[in-house]
Amino acid sequence: MGLTVGVVGGGQLARMLFEAALALDLHVVFYVRPGEEGVRGWAAHVVEGPLRFAELYDFGQSVDVVTFEHELVDERTLRDLEAAGVDLAPRAEAMVIGSNKLYQRRLCDELGLRAVPYTLIDRDAGETPRATPPYLLKAVRGGYDGRGLRRIGSSSDELPREGLWLVEPELAVDAECAAVVARGRDGTCVTWEPVELRMLEGICVEAAWPSPLDAALSAQARRAARSIAVALDFVGVLAVEFFVVDGELVVNEIAPRVHNSGHLTIEGATTSQFENHLRAVAGLPLGSTAPISPAVMVNLIGAPAASQLPSDVRVHRYGKTPRPRRKVGHVTALAADVETARQHARRAARLMGGELVDRLEEIRFA
Amino acid sequence: MGLTVGVVGGGQLARMLFEAALALDLHVVFYVRPGEEGVRGWAAHVVEGPLRFAELYDFGQSVDVVTFEHELVDERTLRDLEAAGVDLAPRAEAMVIGSNKLYQRRLCDELGLRAVPYTLIDRDAGETPRATPPYLLKAVRGGYDGRGLRRIGSSSDELPREGLWLVEPELAVDAECAAVVARGRDGTCVTWEPVELRMLEGICVEAAWPSPLDAALSAQARRAARSIAVALDFVGVLAVEFFVVDGELVVNEIAPRVHNSGHLTIEGATTSQFENHLRAVAGLPLGSTAPISPAVMVNLIGAPAASQLPSDVRVHRYGKTPRPRRKVGHVTALAADVETARQHARRAARLMGGELVDRLEEIRFA
Repeated sequence: MGLTVGVVGGGQLARMLFEAALALDLHVVFYVRPGEEGVRGWAAHVVEGPLRFAELYDFGQSVDVVTFEHELVDERTLRDLEAAGVDLAPRAEAMVIGSNKLYQRRLCDELGLRAVPYTLIDRDAGETPRATPPYLLKAVRGGYDGRGLRRIGSSSDELPREGLWLVEPELAVDAECAAVVARGRDGTCVTWEPVELRMLEGICVEAAWPSPLDAALSAQARRAARSIAVALDFVGVLAVEFFVVDGELVVNEIAPRVHNSGHLTIEGATTSQFENHLRAVAGLPLGSTAPISPAVMVNLIGAPAASQLPSDVRVHRYGKTPRPRRKVGHVTALAADVETARQHARRAARLMGGELVDRLEEIRFA
Repeated sequence: MGLTVGVVGGGQLARMLFEAALALDLHVVFYVRPGEEGVRGWAAHVVEGPLRFAELYDFGQSVDVVTFEHELVDERTLRDLEAAGVDLAPRAEAMVIGSNKLYQRRLCDELGLRAVPYTLIDRDAGETPRATPPYLLKAVRGGYDGRGLRRIGSSSDELPREGLWLVEPELAVDAECAAVVARGRDGTCVTWEPVELRMLEGICVEAAWPSPLDAALSAQARRAARSIAVALDFVGVLAVEFFVVDGELVVNEIAPRVHNSGHLTIEGATTSQFENHLRAVAGLPLGSTAPISPAVMVNLIGAPAASQLPSDVRVHRYGKTPRPRRKVGHVTALAADVETARQHARRAARLMGGELVDRLEEIRFA
């Protein structure tokens, strides 16, 4: 395994990729932005620089293959890197589509996958939504963890001043879930069992498996994730978030990378999303996604109010300076059933302090 | 957790301590010998130097607490470091006793623990064993993975030329097992369920839990490990290897550190031996040792004949150049029962190649 994988990004996803690389003994180098926390000070091989063609090209020349922890490299740069011979995995086109909500919706239409209905407005051209409040605005690019998401509750609420936005109805959602898929260079696809997500303020706070989806919906979610990965000729791990509306799956969002909804695979599955992402990118055979145990992950968010270290869960701290609404760690509990795991994970997260965990009890589905 | 832990040693145990430190976000610096492989090139903070007082003292001054991956620092240096104010965990006395087979046996006598019977010979003084072959010679210091172990099969076999050796009978062993204990700075002790070991040529090749010990023997093994940790006022993780002879436990060896018999705790237990070692050393509360699943670990030893990457087990590669009889990695399989896990782990280890795994089937107990 003499290959060296270059990872663009140095936050918690990079940190967990690093842990997987250590176990596989697969060489990794991280390309981080100035001040980025997560792998700096931990991994031996970290390069710092801006997300510009010239520097990323040099980085690409220093490694065998380049992959991504985030979607911050712009379309043009991605395409130029690939045209210049840098081996991107996933390739530029997959990253471009996977990190653009408009392109995602069009892809779902092409694939016959039901997705959240939308209209598009260009605020740079002064366009205004025709919808009647309440509705949601989602930035076409750059939204995550509640960023790039606006709820317009009444006609007096201010619209964003610029940019391309999707205008979406607020759906009556029965549940939220996600399916994570890994696709190898040879086209082999593996999916993990879907997870149930509990979101607050657009931020994933909890992920759990098994999800409450029945066998048919569960299989459908996995098939949908697989079909998206195949359509994108994807290499690596990709996550698809769904709403369950009136007993049907509706695609909400695609993330062209390892994702918060897959963190519980570290302990809960035979092979984690992080290891399979590296295996895929490095052209190694993918590992089994078989679940080991029911598992619940709860994020540690923002400034910890308490800071006790729990003893009955797996703790993952990211080495990040706490800031409001910032994910600084997570805990995962395994148990014989998902509700017991949920209790353990929530109790541990409360013990460690942080935001939103106390509000998980608020979430009630129809 | 602003503490920085200094780890003397940079091999696979250091590497797995590093993985645990990453998850805990506990700062670690490794002190490695020239050429040592495992953490160099992976961890950001690695210091290289000889195992001498002056350099180790400087290392100790640069961190908050010093712990050990190996028993290679000599008695005098350990005691001098502690006298000079370096915070050693485990403390010098515990390391000295724990890394000297003669002192270990004396400790077992004091504690009323049955251990392998022995006599002592000083080859520097030309002493010869009174025993009739076959018998075993074990170096009082420095033996591991078959090193420091000699079988004298007939009176014509050559004796070692120098050093202190224990002379031991070859026992008719029903099984081999080990108990791993973690003890915190506050005296809190936790033990993991005992593991069964399968050894070849003095090298641990396989570890499995649950072990075939009945509940009484299992509890007795855990109590023995605990009593040794308490007697040594130990801080950190310590392993005790036992023979089962005529249905009774006989202490064979003590290791004053994280140990091969505890590798399966990474996936098989709520908290791994590596994490609990760091928690203990850093004065953090110890994590639960509750088993998650039956688990079997098989070591990858020496030069891999094949090099396929299996997909149904957890793979740990150590970043070490293969050499005959050198441990370069391990795999761990979890399954609903230990025999299924054993089959998966052995099959995966064979797929990856390496030595001794094909000979595991030879091992038959009375």
